[in-house]
Amino acid sequence: MLRSSIYHRPKNNFAYAYDEETLHIRLQAQKGDLQDVTLIHGDPYIWENGEWIYSTSSMKLVGSDDLFDYWQAIIRPPHARLRYGFICNDGKESLTYTERGFFEDVPTHCHYYFAFPFLNKIDVFSPPSWVKDTVWYQIFPERFGNGNPKLNPTNTLSWGETPTQSSFFGGDFEGVINHLDHLIELGINGIYFTPIFKAMTNHKYDTIDYFEIDPHFGDKETFKRLVDECHKRDIKIMLDAVFNHSGYYFEPFQDVIKYGESSKYKDWFHIAKFPLNPGNQLSYRTFSFEPTMPKLNTENKDVQNYLLEVAEYWIREFDIDGWRLDVANEVDHHFWRLFRNRVKAIKPDAYILGEIWHDAMPWLQGDQFDAVMNYRFTNAAIDFFAKKQTTVEQFQNELVHVLQSYPQHVNEVAFNLLGSHDTARILTVCEEDTNRLKLLYLFQLSFTGTPCIYYGDEIGMTGGDDPLCRKCMEWDENKQDLELFHFVQKLISLRQQSPAFSKGEFSFHAINESLVSYRKTLGDEELLIIINPTNRSLKVKFPTSFADSIDLWTNKHVSNDLMLNENEFVIMRKMK
Amino acid sequence: MLRSSIYHRPKNNFAYAYDEETLHIRLQAQKGDLQDVTLIHGDPYIWENGEWIYSTSSMKLVGSDDLFDYWQAIIRPPHARLRYGFICNDGKESLTYTERGFFEDVPTHCHYYFAFPFLNKIDVFSPPSWVKDTVWYQIFPERFGNGNPKLNPTNTLSWGETPTQSSFFGGDFEGVINHLDHLIELGINGIYFTPIFKAMTNHKYDTIDYFEIDPHFGDKETFKRLVDECHKRDIKIMLDAVFNHSGYYFEPFQDVIKYGESSKYKDWFHIAKFPLNPGNQLSYRTFSFEPTMPKLNTENKDVQNYLLEVAEYWIREFDIDGWRLDVANEVDHHFWRLFRNRVKAIKPDAYILGEIWHDAMPWLQGDQFDAVMNYRFTNAAIDFFAKKQTTVEQFQNELVHVLQSYPQHVNEVAFNLLGSHDTARILTVCEEDTNRLKLLYLFQLSFTGTPCIYYGDEIGMTGGDDPLCRKCMEWDENKQDLELFHFVQKLISLRQQSPAFSKGEFSFHAINESLVSYRKTLGDEELLIIINPTNRSLKVKFPTSFADSIDLWTNKHVSNDLMLNENEFVIMRKMK
Repeated sequence: MLRSSIYHRPKNNFAYAYDEETLHIRLQAQKGDLQDVTLIHGDPYIWENGEWIYSTSSMKLVGSDDLFDYWQAIIRPPHARLRYGFICNDGKESLTYTERGFFEDVPTHCHYYFAFPFLNKIDVFSPPSWVKDTVWYQIFPERFGNGNPKLNPTNTLSWGETPTQSSFFGGDFEGVINHLDHLIELGINGIYFTPIFKAMTNHKYDTIDYFEIDPHFGDKETFKRLVDECHKRDIKIMLDAVFNHSGYYFEPFQDVIKYGESSKYKDWFHIAKFPLNPGNQLSYRTFSFEPTMPKLNTENKDVQNYLLEVAEYWIREFDIDGWRLDVANEVDHHFWRLFRNRVKAIKPDAYILGEIWHDAMPWLQGDQFDAVMNYRFTNAAIDFFAKKQTTVEQFQNELVHVLQSYPQHVNEVAFNLLGSHDTARILTVCEEDTNRLKLLYLFQLSFTGTPCIYYGDEIGMTGGDDPLCRKCMEWDENKQDLELFHFVQKLISLRQQSPAFSKGEFSFHAINESLVSYRKTLGDEELLIIINPTNRSLKVKFPTSFADSIDLWTNKHVSNDLMLNENEFVIMRKMK
Repeated sequence: MLRSSIYHRPKNNFAYAYDEETLHIRLQAQKGDLQDVTLIHGDPYIWENGEWIYSTSSMKLVGSDDLFDYWQAIIRPPHARLRYGFICNDGKESLTYTERGFFEDVPTHCHYYFAFPFLNKIDVFSPPSWVKDTVWYQIFPERFGNGNPKLNPTNTLSWGETPTQSSFFGGDFEGVINHLDHLIELGINGIYFTPIFKAMTNHKYDTIDYFEIDPHFGDKETFKRLVDECHKRDIKIMLDAVFNHSGYYFEPFQDVIKYGESSKYKDWFHIAKFPLNPGNQLSYRTFSFEPTMPKLNTENKDVQNYLLEVAEYWIREFDIDGWRLDVANEVDHHFWRLFRNRVKAIKPDAYILGEIWHDAMPWLQGDQFDAVMNYRFTNAAIDFFAKKQTTVEQFQNELVHVLQSYPQHVNEVAFNLLGSHDTARILTVCEEDTNRLKLLYLFQLSFTGTPCIYYGDEIGMTGGDDPLCRKCMEWDENKQDLELFHFVQKLISLRQQSPAFSKGEFSFHAINESLVSYRKTLGDEELLIIINPTNRSLKVKFPTSFADSIDLWTNKHVSNDLMLNENEFVIMRKMK
């Protein structure tokens, strides 16, 4: 047995409370090494005649990637307490793996075992329940719709010109309100707005005033109307909180520039020395090395109070439904815990989404965020479907790796995007091959988590990295890819129609090495989705259990010996 | 290369901020598999000509146990941000290990790499600085000294009789004050008192009133005097907070018994159904299945406020220096975060010690505890020195495993005990062999962390499990093992005399398979401690670098060809 490859440590993705009563316990082992794993578990205080009383449960192999098998058991400890270990069997030997290592005999004292000492409800990761049913749509307000030209900045360019990093096009809230029908038609039910507060740039990530709407976008009354109109249509609103740094023209920073060490705001930032120098050798910390974005000192109580009041204000006064947190990984955990407590106190079902591009387990333990922008999903999906750089096997391995690195309920509300204002547009990444993009959408909209569509991607907009990915929304239907739009629309409607399609338990189900195939299961409903991402036709023999099932996409019966052409797919559906 | 045995995940013991400027990065790999490991690291925002700029640093092999080698690098990122990966070389191939897996080529984009996104000072685990210099002494107040017989409970037995679980002997605060000279003579500088608040039992873990001193122990005035007398002598005071559960006679619980569902305290506990039933089928949650210890609902705001006020009260009014938290692992993390914030706000250098017998990483991340009772150390030390159940190699492996499972600064303040009121007395565990106990004390008092001596162990008291480990302190010098006392006293004084002995960096240093030998290094001072735990004399050839050094224990030169008799040891000291 390859003992050094067997890994478990309580908490994180390995032992967590899925809900108030249920623990998930996982073990990772070298791929193929173990034939079976049995969980030994019991309450630490139940003894008889000097012996600890335990039960055993077989663990299920729930996934494999290139290196590991992942085993899982689901346990409901009657007294909310658990000690546990793993009997690992590789066919040659059977060893019990505990906190103190491996034993040939099963240790009889519970002190040897791993501990989940108490399932306390308040510590359970519990994102808002509505998030699982949400399809997000990301809007970059300066570029979505110009509904009130009176608000146009000076030097506003004509709608649709090629943008530079400093262009303005006059997008505003009226423009969003005017186009809500487009969103309703598409079927989305959540909007994520990049920043809307008063700032210098077109992207508004350099806040001047966190309590004011940027005047180019509108005023508070218009914003309130926008929220209300969205809520009337059951669309949630999420705003972007840029709390890692302010803008250069944020009043407290200006005060520090003006008064130096005697400014009452001098501790609001990270100043190395006075006077401030915004030149090559920065004398203050910033986002990246960007002098116009001084890093806020979120360890300072006044800064904390200020930002927490901001967080509360826009919920209290405008009833927004969530906060997306910019550069969330560079702000201290201590601050995010305060943030969560404050936000959830005023709106318990508010959604908190962190911008974290890497492994984000430390932020997803129930005390900080509900989700992060799942770029790990994005990368895997793009490398396979868009760039065709990876094999089906590599793609599956990477996704299993991501899924297994988080608890199940974290995955269920992961913010799965194909791109954003920070990346090249997905159709461009697909080398403008709409077929690839369609398969990406199919996968994104059926994968575990909450999908997000970047404005305009649904009608085939293109563009490379910033600024080209921030072109004005195309409203001329003659220039929109309406077929793509209807394709995405249909996928979104499938999420309503089929709970398994949107929220079913996901698992890859190998049919052959060229096809992507996976199951989604919820209650009595079971789907088998088979995608042919190759450039040739392939014969598919699907499991006999799906023999008489219907393709949810075409609503037609499918023969057992199916021929899938390039870029074709089926969504086989059956009821148990 | 055994890729599935290579493990790293940011935070916990694998990537943590040691101080405001310093990160420790660790990698674990199958023992013997890698010849060298190089850390690739850089700031994610430093690029030149489209390429990420990184540095490399070799990693040091800092420990090995039976399964793993542990590699470490120490990095001070100039802008507090780090992306990093590992170039692993096993002599046959070189692979770069990143968040996205293993690569034959070194990935050039920082997005592939592990992230320590920002070293925020407020998140750094930072225990009080005085703790490293503390030698604790645990007192069970009912059994240490009877200074005021007027406070004796009815049925008080004669001092020194064999206790039962319900005996009373009249120990009190006056008794402690009267015997402070003993503690000063021994050299300890911190007292941990098991509970002192009003309760029914002799152990007082069933609190009746958290704001009152138990009348058998004294009153608040006497307690204040006790704290003052200790502080005058530079002795810190730590009290026991029993916040997992109250006693049966705690007024709120009595109110619930009396008024049932209409009690205003009904949500202070975990009541399954009314009326309460303290019988076999408990209708409320308790500690273990003990009906007299109803579990407190620390998720309830009123309970939180009450307990936090208790925590603050004894610091504010009596200036205590620390809290030991009973059954800390079964109380929610959310509560402990509130507790830490409240306690540190009123006394920033208060010590917070959790009772956790198992792996406690989730409580030692900077947001909850400063330390836990390190029973993992206890078990390893006892199995080897006291019970002689393990080999030198197994002993070393187990300790390296424990050390490597925590960050370095967590180990530095670990509360290392040989026993407590919850375990058989250490001399009894040693089968009353004082020689074994002496070696245990030597090891405990020179190991990384903060040692604690259980009252009476230092004079050779014996006793099996509770109640026998709670016998009255022996004050008759004729019945005390004074030689043992002077031995422990000398070890404690060595901790003052030699910073390396107490706070030096610890590492095992194999000389031969029968000897326990380890180095302790601090600044210019280096110690090599060699212990012969066998029952035969052994010739020791120690490293030539220690050729002219002196034994700190005997103050004598030691020849290079040393003969160590059974149970003998040397503490070789040299200055760099």
